[in-house]
Amino acid sequence: MRLVQFCHRGGEGGVRVGLEQAGGQGVIDLKAFDPSMPSTMREFLEMGEKGMECAKRALSSGQHVVARSEVRLLSPVTGPEKVVCVGMNYKDHCLEQNAPIPKEPIIFSKFPSAITGPYDDIVLPAESQEVDWEVELAFVIGRKGKHIKEEEALSYVAGFSVANDVSARDWQMKRNGKQWLLGKTFDTFCPLGPALVTTSALKDVHNLGVRCLVNGAVVQDSNTNQMIFQTEKLVAWVSQFVTLCPGDVFLTGTPPGVGVFRNPPVYLKRGDVVECQIDEIGSIKNTVV
Amino acid sequence: MRLVQFCHRGGEGGVRVGLEQAGGQGVIDLKAFDPSMPSTMREFLEMGEKGMECAKRALSSGQHVVARSEVRLLSPVTGPEKVVCVGMNYKDHCLEQNAPIPKEPIIFSKFPSAITGPYDDIVLPAESQEVDWEVELAFVIGRKGKHIKEEEALSYVAGFSVANDVSARDWQMKRNGKQWLLGKTFDTFCPLGPALVTTSALKDVHNLGVRCLVNGAVVQDSNTNQMIFQTEKLVAWVSQFVTLCPGDVFLTGTPPGVGVFRNPPVYLKRGDVVECQIDEIGSIKNTVV
Repeated sequence: MRLVQFCHRGGEGGVRVGLEQAGGQGVIDLKAFDPSMPSTMREFLEMGEKGMECAKRALSSGQHVVARSEVRLLSPVTGPEKVVCVGMNYKDHCLEQNAPIPKEPIIFSKFPSAITGPYDDIVLPAESQEVDWEVELAFVIGRKGKHIKEEEALSYVAGFSVANDVSARDWQMKRNGKQWLLGKTFDTFCPLGPALVTTSALKDVHNLGVRCLVNGAVVQDSNTNQMIFQTEKLVAWVSQFVTLCPGDVFLTGTPPGVGVFRNPPVYLKRGDVVECQIDEIGSIKNTVV
Repeated sequence: MRLVQFCHRGGEGGVRVGLEQAGGQGVIDLKAFDPSMPSTMREFLEMGEKGMECAKRALSSGQHVVARSEVRLLSPVTGPEKVVCVGMNYKDHCLEQNAPIPKEPIIFSKFPSAITGPYDDIVLPAESQEVDWEVELAFVIGRKGKHIKEEEALSYVAGFSVANDVSARDWQMKRNGKQWLLGKTFDTFCPLGPALVTTSALKDVHNLGVRCLVNGAVVQDSNTNQMIFQTEKLVAWVSQFVTLCPGDVFLTGTPPGVGVFRNPPVYLKRGDVVECQIDEIGSIKNTVV
């Protein structure tokens, strides 16, 4: 299934959970199908299997379809408790910066306020001159857990999505005592979407092409098979420290081709269009304003 | 006013917003006074002035008082969007580690899942051998804002509280690529409370004694007048990066006397009792288990 959050273009009804029909036909409004269903993805995920079963029924019903032209897609999750990010998690990205391959995941975070929709604008802050792109495979936690075993980790993942880990390199690398948080967490620095693709709908999430295009030119082009720590390991690792809960978003690191390591470095400017693609999952496209 | 979150010892009724009566007499149940009032502090703060006015009326009514013995205090805020932390923000703490006084605030974060109540246990994780204490002045955002001016910053602060920025020094200082997040964010690593003391109830929040006691022995003893960046500056600084919203919690840094800089270093062990005190605001007391 491809789960989304959307609102009607007219604006009425607020946030809704929806199911994308195959072939891009339309979006089924889950709450219209069953008024007892919640309006947000986080609440939907908190329902666990009961919610998923209802979503399957809604999808096969073919009822309550909202036409694509009437839908504005939001990020599939808003207001999660955590946005967990992984640094230096692609072999080829480590090589690009002559950095050793990490022996343990390197974990940092964004504030949830950084999340923005799959086609929304990235706001270039006056405070940074070095804003960069990072296409990343994202995943979303589906049930609560602590000290999760790698063998069971996938059962804690609701599904996968595409993210852009937008990064102000000046703040990330040179200021704030080299703590990455501020450079990573400006408002709109986490475009996410277009859908939350459930795990069972993907054949092998660790063998998918990953690309980033800036103004149509390919700047990142790799494969999730280059990830050093895969989904299962990341869930197990982070759950040693914190209780994971439904809606928590993970960004799993970026492949090579970011702007800061180009010679000379290249940064985003107003008017640029950044597209992040992952095979089978989808594509997000954001204009820098 | 002293705003709290509490639940009845019996467990019925769930989370409530309350007002502490003077002299520790009892806690007024806001929702019992006015059933249209919300149950959580975050929702209460989102109501703005209307909520505060109702709280004042509830307090002066002297009605709907729950006896102290019937109350279990929770952290005054749970599930905020952000827990913003400041590093190296006391002059005397910088001197203790021979570190230069920062020219800009150093900002890091904890996940909201780290927050625990003012008298709840701190769970010592098997993953760390170097868990340390840090008493800190905390404040909570009362209204939404971005690019807030220092002159107006205090009007965005709902009030102040006491926090313990519990820190696993091994993870903070030696692992995770020196990103502090993991060492700071184990579950229960952010005891907070006992009350959210509204700004108008404090004469000068930047001239209050701050102490930490471990098993009754004073280990930190300083004053908020040692803070390098005060509340107004921190609100203005962080709001350059992110939109602040009601419920966001700030931890403003710790004075000297932490365990890691002692010779030899001292760390928390099972059975230790850590008490963090700030004059006029209150005291939190947590047992390490």
